[in-house]
Amino acid sequence: MVIVMGPEATQGDIEAIVEIIGSAGGDAFVSRGVSRTIIGLVGDVEQFGTLNLKGMRGVAEVMRVTAPYKLVSRDNHPERSTVRVGGVPIGPGLVTLIAGPCAVETPQQTLDAALMAKAAGATLLRGGAYKPRTSPYAFQGLGEAGLRILADVREETGLPIVTEVVDAHDVELVASYADMLQVGTRNAQNFALLQAVGGIGKPVMLKRGMNATIEEWLMAAEYIAQRGNLDIVLCERGIRTFETATRNTLDVSAVPMAQRLSHLPVIIDPSHSGGRRDLVLPLTRAAIAVGADGVIIDVHPQPELALCDGPQALVQGDLDELSEVMRRLPPLLGKTATGDALATA
Amino acid sequence: MVIVMGPEATQGDIEAIVEIIGSAGGDAFVSRGVSRTIIGLVGDVEQFGTLNLKGMRGVAEVMRVTAPYKLVSRDNHPERSTVRVGGVPIGPGLVTLIAGPCAVETPQQTLDAALMAKAAGATLLRGGAYKPRTSPYAFQGLGEAGLRILADVREETGLPIVTEVVDAHDVELVASYADMLQVGTRNAQNFALLQAVGGIGKPVMLKRGMNATIEEWLMAAEYIAQRGNLDIVLCERGIRTFETATRNTLDVSAVPMAQRLSHLPVIIDPSHSGGRRDLVLPLTRAAIAVGADGVIIDVHPQPELALCDGPQALVQGDLDELSEVMRRLPPLLGKTATGDALATA
Amino acid sequence: MVIVMGPEATQGDIEAIVEIIGSAGGDAFVSRGVSRTIIGLVGDVEQFGTLNLKGMRGVAEVMRVTAPYKLVSRDNHPERSTVRVGGVPIGPGLVTLIAGPCAVETPQQTLDAALMAKAAGATLLRGGAYKPRTSPYAFQGLGEAGLRILADVREETGLPIVTEVVDAHDVELVASYADMLQVGTRNAQNFALLQAVGGIGKPVMLKRGMNATIEEWLMAAEYIAQRGNLDIVLCERGIRTFETATRNTLDVSAVPMAQRLSHLPVIIDPSHSGGRRDLVLPLTRAAIAVGADGVIIDVHPQPELALCDGPQALVQGDLDELSEVMRRLPPLLGKTATGDALATA
Amino acid sequence: MVIVMGPEATQGDIEAIVEIIGSAGGDAFVSRGVSRTIIGLVGDVEQFGTLNLKGMRGVAEVMRVTAPYKLVSRDNHPERSTVRVGGVPIGPGLVTLIAGPCAVETPQQTLDAALMAKAAGATLLRGGAYKPRTSPYAFQGLGEAGLRILADVREETGLPIVTEVVDAHDVELVASYADMLQVGTRNAQNFALLQAVGGIGKPVMLKRGMNATIEEWLMAAEYIAQRGNLDIVLCERGIRTFETATRNTLDVSAVPMAQRLSHLPVIIDPSHSGGRRDLVLPLTRAAIAVGADGVIIDVHPQPELALCDGPQALVQGDLDELSEVMRRLPPLLGKTATGDALATA
Repeated sequence: MVIVMGPEATQGDIEAIVEIIGSAGGDAFVSRGVSRTIIGLVGDVEQFGTLNLKGMRGVAEVMRVTAPYKLVSRDNHPERSTVRVGGVPIGPGLVTLIAGPCAVETPQQTLDAALMAKAAGATLLRGGAYKPRTSPYAFQGLGEAGLRILADVREETGLPIVTEVVDAHDVELVASYADMLQVGTRNAQNFALLQAVGGIGKPVMLKRGMNATIEEWLMAAEYIAQRGNLDIVLCERGIRTFETATRNTLDVSAVPMAQRLSHLPVIIDPSHSGGRRDLVLPLTRAAIAVGADGVIIDVHPQPELALCDGPQALVQGDLDELSEVMRRLPPLLGKTATGDALATA
Repeated sequence: MVIVMGPEATQGDIEAIVEIIGSAGGDAFVSRGVSRTIIGLVGDVEQFGTLNLKGMRGVAEVMRVTAPYKLVSRDNHPERSTVRVGGVPIGPGLVTLIAGPCAVETPQQTLDAALMAKAAGATLLRGGAYKPRTSPYAFQGLGEAGLRILADVREETGLPIVTEVVDAHDVELVASYADMLQVGTRNAQNFALLQAVGGIGKPVMLKRGMNATIEEWLMAAEYIAQRGNLDIVLCERGIRTFETATRNTLDVSAVPMAQRLSHLPVIIDPSHSGGRRDLVLPLTRAAIAVGADGVIIDVHPQPELALCDGPQALVQGDLDELSEVMRRLPPLLGKTATGDALATA
Repeated sequence: MVIVMGPEATQGDIEAIVEIIGSAGGDAFVSRGVSRTIIGLVGDVEQFGTLNLKGMRGVAEVMRVTAPYKLVSRDNHPERSTVRVGGVPIGPGLVTLIAGPCAVETPQQTLDAALMAKAAGATLLRGGAYKPRTSPYAFQGLGEAGLRILADVREETGLPIVTEVVDAHDVELVASYADMLQVGTRNAQNFALLQAVGGIGKPVMLKRGMNATIEEWLMAAEYIAQRGNLDIVLCERGIRTFETATRNTLDVSAVPMAQRLSHLPVIIDPSHSGGRRDLVLPLTRAAIAVGADGVIIDVHPQPELALCDGPQALVQGDLDELSEVMRRLPPLLGKTATGDALATA
Repeated sequence: MVIVMGPEATQGDIEAIVEIIGSAGGDAFVSRGVSRTIIGLVGDVEQFGTLNLKGMRGVAEVMRVTAPYKLVSRDNHPERSTVRVGGVPIGPGLVTLIAGPCAVETPQQTLDAALMAKAAGATLLRGGAYKPRTSPYAFQGLGEAGLRILADVREETGLPIVTEVVDAHDVELVASYADMLQVGTRNAQNFALLQAVGGIGKPVMLKRGMNATIEEWLMAAEYIAQRGNLDIVLCERGIRTFETATRNTLDVSAVPMAQRLSHLPVIIDPSHSGGRRDLVLPLTRAAIAVGADGVIIDVHPQPELALCDGPQALVQGDLDELSEVMRRLPPLLGKTATGDALATA
């Protein structure tokens, strides 16, 4: 931690800080500049955090110099992690395709979408039974009936299930069906939910909040990790900006940044960031090319009938191109598509 | 609703839309332009919403022309509403001051802050027992013990209590102590929580999500209203922008905009938006001047010891100026400070 | 300046920095933390700036601790400045109303608008002869013919003129007519223009770039000041955010922030930020209440015929309320409306 | 164009609009909804633009349904364009690498950087002689001396030159040396400059304003096109968002969007968007994968000595990887690197 004193700070102000840091068991190094004095703090930063140093006389700024997250930080865990979901790995050296319908609507629609996904190279099935919707008048998902459909389709296709949970008190129920729990962008700072999924012992996919900085995203992951669960996959899905031509702005730079700061796998959702079908394949290629450990994509057998986000789902005709991308792009980065890796294994 | 067809749309594409709208019980009016055709839809918009018109052939854009919220809309309720919290009104013609500590820490600190608040003209006491914090290592509030402290201080000062609830399953407990439930900015799209506070029969203060448009904020209010609770006060508290000199950017324009779109009272939180003590009084004056129905302010007897957001709390020395603002500014807008209104009544 | 070393930095990396700073005539103070070492630099920061310290081995971050602007900084000029425009002061203790048409269209329209402005308490006339427009197909202003109209109206009304200049090579011409040159939001980083208005010896109103941080705004002012012109008035006019209900988001907090960081007067443009007539009066009240040294407002005798930004111009019926605001609000802040100050003087 | 009437609009209000549109030579189609009436306008939209319809009684909203740009629109020019710069093509089917130093500093540094660029597969040389800098105290470029160095290096290497112009009145001078003129992000709405480069008869690279929507970017291109110059290459270089971990947020989605809306080639600048060397290669891969027609990259023989943006320049050790990307990624998209295309031709 570094404290920058204002130009008006007195010798007494500086001494007061040195003293309070000393009494908290730390050391304070004073560097007097021409117009400003800076004080470097050494010791247990968390403890200094409670001192409200910013409120002390003469202090202009308090700057943190270490990351506020620990368990998910790469500083203390230089090896990048692999997370296994029902036996399917997500992590370095691989590109994992997760696909399926945005929302589970009927058994047939879900099965059809799962078969489309599998044919395109997906090794995990996505599908929502609980949908957080901006409007209370929009379709909110089938709930537990949807989970049962997903379980049946898993039986039939062999694809483990990734599905969203939106309420801390549904975590146990959803975890009893799902192979991986998804925390959505609107719940990226729903701390009760983060703690609940942290305690349930199933892998978690944590979407970035649409207004979350990379640091806040990693802090949200830290909430999960703190409850003993390090099987976390980070998912970039677009942030909110002034641009309105796309639903959100996909922040591809966040992938290498998050991979440098954290040991957790990082994937991209090209369907929800753009909100347009014609963007999904270009953004999928960009996602893999930038180094994402996987992608999660909406597919739908009949998107014109979809109850949720139909306009962005890939259709049958797009899947050849998707499976071509999955086959040819990962090797160019020295990686293997997870489906191929499992087939070979 | 208006559908804009792309330049490549055929006569058949247009007829397909007219037909599908007709079969949904609506009317479609076609206006053929030089390069584009537009189709105006008349009928029950919600029903059209499920048609996935955006996915139909030839459609370039689907534009909604009516607000997606109803119960909180001013269209259907032209008179602006007054919400009563433990007998204290918030609404047109009044300026209500809500003040207190950001977090309840001890009985003495809470009582001292409440007395400061009351002396400055506050008629409601704010104070957090459950604190949503970005870091899992930060102080998370006293929980029910904090609620008991608030109840004791209410007893002593006569000030009804406004306090935050962060988990749907705490709503009943918090409501058993509080006079008004606060839903914070990070929970602005926590739909389970919104529905829970909608069902509990206590007034709700709904903070704007730091990344929520005014429309999304009103949709969140609609979630509460839909459960039968229209005692909602909207609270603008700053949005996230590129500017980093202030914690968030207070959007004062949102007050007249929200008051025009909705009948609900709208207040401002000048403490959390700026995140700096020296901004609180200027932003309070701006809030009242722009027409806010109230302000909610952090005060703390010893902010240098505060466990949460100390740097932004007003201290004893600021309160004379605050009470002067409360005394002199509302009349200039033809309004009365709620404290004065209650004293006279 | 503070250098934060990465966790992997070696003793050699640290020594290399100490040495390079020493050879640049500075001093480097090393504070070794548990996981990070920080180095405080003392000396001439500008000189360090050319060292590319960020590119040196082991360096994680380089943090500046002093403002990058000097001439406009309040650090070196604690007294707030008053700028005089054709004899009319803008500065502390005053609230100056600048009003007029967005664009000069005809002599009659300009005179009518000027008389409306004067009656409402304006002491300076605004009006654009050169209009920067997003579309090349929109009305671009009358050019020099517009300047001549403004000069005639000044003659008739006695109001000094504020008008925009959009090209460095028009500065001399515009300055030969105008009392104050305006640099618009789209030119906030047009450095050639900033330097040109800095050299012409007329007061300048510098609008904040709609995507400029407060620091970048002050850096733009520094460009003007560096050419010897300190008669600069800063004008906040809304920043670009994700909110689309208003044209831009008025950042009222920027006023007290800029006044604390700089000695220059700071005013607000409530017309262009909101882009809606019904927001102008509420935002004007907020502007004065937050402490702005003035406001600049569009008025138009017949806004339904305006060639530019008609929807946001105040009309005759609004002016009584505006002049009431100008009469009653400044005294509440211990200030005087400039018109009243001049009348008394 | 579509006009949405407010719920309070009367029959008279509607008729007034029908009449004014008729008198402007257009047709107005009225669709009466349950709560709102919408009016579709057919005719010459530019003419309606001057009517100030938004200011008319009863009007709630005016929505444009056709793009406001024409010459650069793909609607009227479905074939995507190829722009030639000193014989080097940029356009569909190709990936063009433009590389060189951010700023021209010395003949040796520029030559070394150009040779690095060429070896990596670049067919165009970038280099700045005029640098727009946020701080007036930062290095502003060598001016004409820099242009002469670029011309000498072109002689020696055979690489045509791309260089920035920052002032309308330097356009002729810069164009006398350069093969392509660059308009930078800070000048994206410097309309005088746009018009000047539009009139000079040299290809133009137009960077997206860091706060410009895609529509505003295309409007800026329209300013250039309107002067008779359609040799425009659009360059996405990151937009300003709330994220501070990267200098700007690269908006890869803007590439397919702009290519769909406009016939002009679209390239990406991965160096300036991220502002970090370790992001350049991942973002270059993402750029090519998303479908960009080229990339423009900073290289520097000794970035630790660079006078401008050293931290983001690629160094010798990165170039093997860059040339590998240029060799292997375009074919995967059915494209050819321009260098290979020229070698074969």
